[in-house]
Amino acid sequence: MQSHDTIVRIQPTDFRLLAQAQARLDRLTKPIGSLGRLEELAARYVMITGEIHPKVPRGAVFTFAADHGVTVEGVSAYPSTVTPQMVLNFLRGGAGVNVLARHVGIEVRVVDIGVAFDFEAMPGLIHKKVMPGSKNLMVESAMSVAQAEQAVTIGIELATEAAQQGIGLIGTGEMGIGNTTASSAIAAVMTGRPVPEITGRGTGIDDVGHARKIDVIQRALALHRLDSTHAMEVLAKVGGLEIGGLAGLMLGAAAARVPVVLDGFIAGAAALIAVGLQPHCKDYLIASHQSVERGHQAVLNHLGLKPLFDLDLRLGEGTGACLGMSLVFAAIKVLTEMATFDEAGVSERHT
Amino acid sequence: MQSHDTIVRIQPTDFRLLAQAQARLDRLTKPIGSLGRLEELAARYVMITGEIHPKVPRGAVFTFAADHGVTVEGVSAYPSTVTPQMVLNFLRGGAGVNVLARHVGIEVRVVDIGVAFDFEAMPGLIHKKVMPGSKNLMVESAMSVAQAEQAVTIGIELATEAAQQGIGLIGTGEMGIGNTTASSAIAAVMTGRPVPEITGRGTGIDDVGHARKIDVIQRALALHRLDSTHAMEVLAKVGGLEIGGLAGLMLGAAAARVPVVLDGFIAGAAALIAVGLQPHCKDYLIASHQSVERGHQAVLNHLGLKPLFDLDLRLGEGTGACLGMSLVFAAIKVLTEMATFDEAGVSERHT
Repeated sequence: MQSHDTIVRIQPTDFRLLAQAQARLDRLTKPIGSLGRLEELAARYVMITGEIHPKVPRGAVFTFAADHGVTVEGVSAYPSTVTPQMVLNFLRGGAGVNVLARHVGIEVRVVDIGVAFDFEAMPGLIHKKVMPGSKNLMVESAMSVAQAEQAVTIGIELATEAAQQGIGLIGTGEMGIGNTTASSAIAAVMTGRPVPEITGRGTGIDDVGHARKIDVIQRALALHRLDSTHAMEVLAKVGGLEIGGLAGLMLGAAAARVPVVLDGFIAGAAALIAVGLQPHCKDYLIASHQSVERGHQAVLNHLGLKPLFDLDLRLGEGTGACLGMSLVFAAIKVLTEMATFDEAGVSERHT
Repeated sequence: MQSHDTIVRIQPTDFRLLAQAQARLDRLTKPIGSLGRLEELAARYVMITGEIHPKVPRGAVFTFAADHGVTVEGVSAYPSTVTPQMVLNFLRGGAGVNVLARHVGIEVRVVDIGVAFDFEAMPGLIHKKVMPGSKNLMVESAMSVAQAEQAVTIGIELATEAAQQGIGLIGTGEMGIGNTTASSAIAAVMTGRPVPEITGRGTGIDDVGHARKIDVIQRALALHRLDSTHAMEVLAKVGGLEIGGLAGLMLGAAAARVPVVLDGFIAGAAALIAVGLQPHCKDYLIASHQSVERGHQAVLNHLGLKPLFDLDLRLGEGTGACLGMSLVFAAIKVLTEMATFDEAGVSERHT
């Protein structure tokens, strides 16, 4: 399959570029290292893209939407009907991700990759439905391996197309009632952590629902007997279509040397799948925020990523990614717009 | 004095406005509280300004520059000549604060409140020099109480004027080689913490310099025998002119019900003075970031402020404040641009 070719094409990033960028940063009119993680972001952007003098790129956040059969088990505080309703809200520009994307000057691309609703032709909606919602992962595979591969391929193609259009920074977003259940299941398998440690309250389920959610995931893992070295199978058995799309988006972006800014917990689960399929993919990922969702920190630790900020967010959609993308833009501007000591005629430190 | 009238006019904020704003936030298409600290910021903006349906305001960061006589003791990694050189860099737009202010769409107002250099008439520079640098706080008062009051008054007047011009969000910035020494001295007096706990490396002094800096501050405190209940005297004896200007800026903004976004450690020291002069001033302050500078956390704890983010910044100038102001703008847009459940036809949670 073509997506396989893309995945094997991903190269590790070149640390010599990091050093070149840092050398420029060290000549700017500021104490060395004093812009902290903005400097780290600027250097990573250079390393990922290979652009020594980068322009601020166009950015887009992809919000993949899908439904989850497991919601029949009562694992979410909201009904599944919210998934298509929120897709319509995205298309009208009234959701959190729309507001924050406008604020930071990026585009929102909304993808129906598996919503259990027929949107017909809908302007602005990217129609890529693999199936109308995954199946109940507690009692059967959420999808077939072929469907999981199809979801990943869709993500790869969307990232590839975006890169060809000149999008130089990609953010991840999602909408899918029930998707923290699938994400916790993936995270438990891929990190090896116990389910209760990695299962949170999603959109805000109560204690009884939370206990039920843990039980549902534990039953699913007992049924499917998964192995973390088979990431595509993990995605198929206990994942979700939007999670597959996001994993593909990361892989396609990495192959095109476009940095990917991760949103929260579901993005983290998708990153575990993407990195499971291609370990070099990790070099292209930037974690925006530390989510409130329990388990997110363990996922980020497993990926070796340190989030940029913690604003107690737990909305998803790509909201945190938008704010993270704005910091990447800020970092690029620091690198390229600040004066050097020489240019500004500023004295350097005592030696 | 007129500034005294301004200071006594500052009112505590009204928590009923916070509840009104939160009620609107809870009707927006997201799980309750899921935008975390953005919601908190939006509600605080409403409470401070009294605007229930706020527009995104014009923003300005004020970068006050001044020199410090204490630099003769070898407390900084950079020579004092850097202060005026950086002022010129600000005016040309090549410094970190310029880049980040442009990025987030705010103005930079550069104020010479006490630089030891004669700028003559310089377009874009706000000329408010009280004296050409403070005196060496280790051996004498940094300035007289009258000069400290003058610096505070300048800050009050600049904030008042900005509010009259329609500036609805103010950020704090500073430039002054040696000013972390003055700030640590203020912080030690106002928080009661030991000097070594509250004294960091500023722009990056080495171990020997750091030990000397602690010794200099301890000698200054032994000489001046300060009392935290006399904030103006603390400012005069061990402060700095830019610190006085910043304290005044906070007071003037609070009197005009304009929120103030604090930058890092020096802003924190100025806030201790401002809150010492008028405890209600605290209600109008928003901490942008947790600085690398040792002592900043103790200052924020003393003020009861929780920073929005930690990006390992330690540049000053107002750089962190710019990023914080962008989050305030984002929060206002969340409050005013997101659709409600009713407007979007989205189902609410299971009850």
